[in-house]
Amino acid sequence: MAQPRRRDLKRSGLFVTFEGIDGSGKSTQARLLAEALRARGHQVVLTREPGGSPGAEEIRALVLEGDPDRWSAETELLLFTAARRDHMERTIWPALKAGAVVICDRFADSTRMYQGLSRGQLRPMVDKLHDMMIGDEPDVTLLIDMDPETGLSRARGRRGHEERFEDFGLDLQTRMREGFLDLAAEFPTRFRVVDGNRAEETVAAEIRGLIAPELAPDPA
Amino acid sequence: MAQPRRRDLKRSGLFVTFEGIDGSGKSTQARLLAEALRARGHQVVLTREPGGSPGAEEIRALVLEGDPDRWSAETELLLFTAARRDHMERTIWPALKAGAVVICDRFADSTRMYQGLSRGQLRPMVDKLHDMMIGDEPDVTLLIDMDPETGLSRARGRRGHEERFEDFGLDLQTRMREGFLDLAAEFPTRFRVVDGNRAEETVAAEIRGLIAPELAPDPA
Repeated sequence: MAQPRRRDLKRSGLFVTFEGIDGSGKSTQARLLAEALRARGHQVVLTREPGGSPGAEEIRALVLEGDPDRWSAETELLLFTAARRDHMERTIWPALKAGAVVICDRFADSTRMYQGLSRGQLRPMVDKLHDMMIGDEPDVTLLIDMDPETGLSRARGRRGHEERFEDFGLDLQTRMREGFLDLAAEFPTRFRVVDGNRAEETVAAEIRGLIAPELAPDPA
Repeated sequence: MAQPRRRDLKRSGLFVTFEGIDGSGKSTQARLLAEALRARGHQVVLTREPGGSPGAEEIRALVLEGDPDRWSAETELLLFTAARRDHMERTIWPALKAGAVVICDRFADSTRMYQGLSRGQLRPMVDKLHDMMIGDEPDVTLLIDMDPETGLSRARGRRGHEERFEDFGLDLQTRMREGFLDLAAEFPTRFRVVDGNRAEETVAAEIRGLIAPELAPDPA
């Protein structure tokens, strides 16, 4: 049975986010889904966080460059929320209003997981700030679930990856995976958990199947 | 009768802020008070907002440089709150804990006044964000009250002033003055309103008199 399409009255588009540990393949899968939907005539905006708008990219650079300890967890949370607000205003909300499918590589669940798990018990603050300043959630969140060891070895093999979280190693990857699975259990209506330990095209096909019931009929 | 000294149990220092419209002389008066207290042997940290710590100065630059419309009021509020959190953590809270007198040129009342008055009715959001992420207020706030026309002409005569607010002219200066006076009425315990339309040294002497009851005995 097809799941009912959840529609916010304020918008006609579909807001899809990808989450998962480093090396889970979420960026690749986000791109593959965008390509598949475009090929079928949908208007698609593929974006990412942190960043995704010119202002948010500037804030991203301010947070991620330099000494990782130069911002406290609370200040970093405020900066990421500022970046997300700009991203929503300049990129995501206008695209959804225009009826596009917005596919975002990482979103608020990454903040919930990282800040709540690895930098102290800030989850209540994260939630209050999100409700007050963002006040929106994805229609569908695709969690690419991945064996932490495989994810870590893939992430380490990449050139130019961001060092800050990955260097904490396998223990942190394991806790992150559990953090994402906890979020999927907390928000069962919008989360879909996809086994990422399979061939890229197999994972992509399953994702296309999961998204199909949420979409408007193919324009093409 | 001397006013009772308000002491937060978490700190031994005194937190003094200066507020007022552009050209009111608050920066000069903040500096003169710092010099007077240092001459009497007090440990004084003179700082300013936005900015006041290396990280907060970087955020200040991000907000104030470039097109004034590149951030929405909400995003700007988040960025200024991030800067203030960093300023509190790195500069103000450590100094207060060490027993210093912290003198800050502009603080949260400027945010309350600017965001609440000139960029929409955001005051409830400003207050909730402040309570959640800063959670602290000055012991004493000195409002240098100034005739808006005199203030504007002083501000315009300065080299290198920031153009963004001042160019709205006399009407905005007048509304800002009223906004500050409203805040003084709202927080009568910590606000002291000082007539800034007098000779610099007269104003400075009155401020020294107003601060004296709040201070620990002179060390010198």
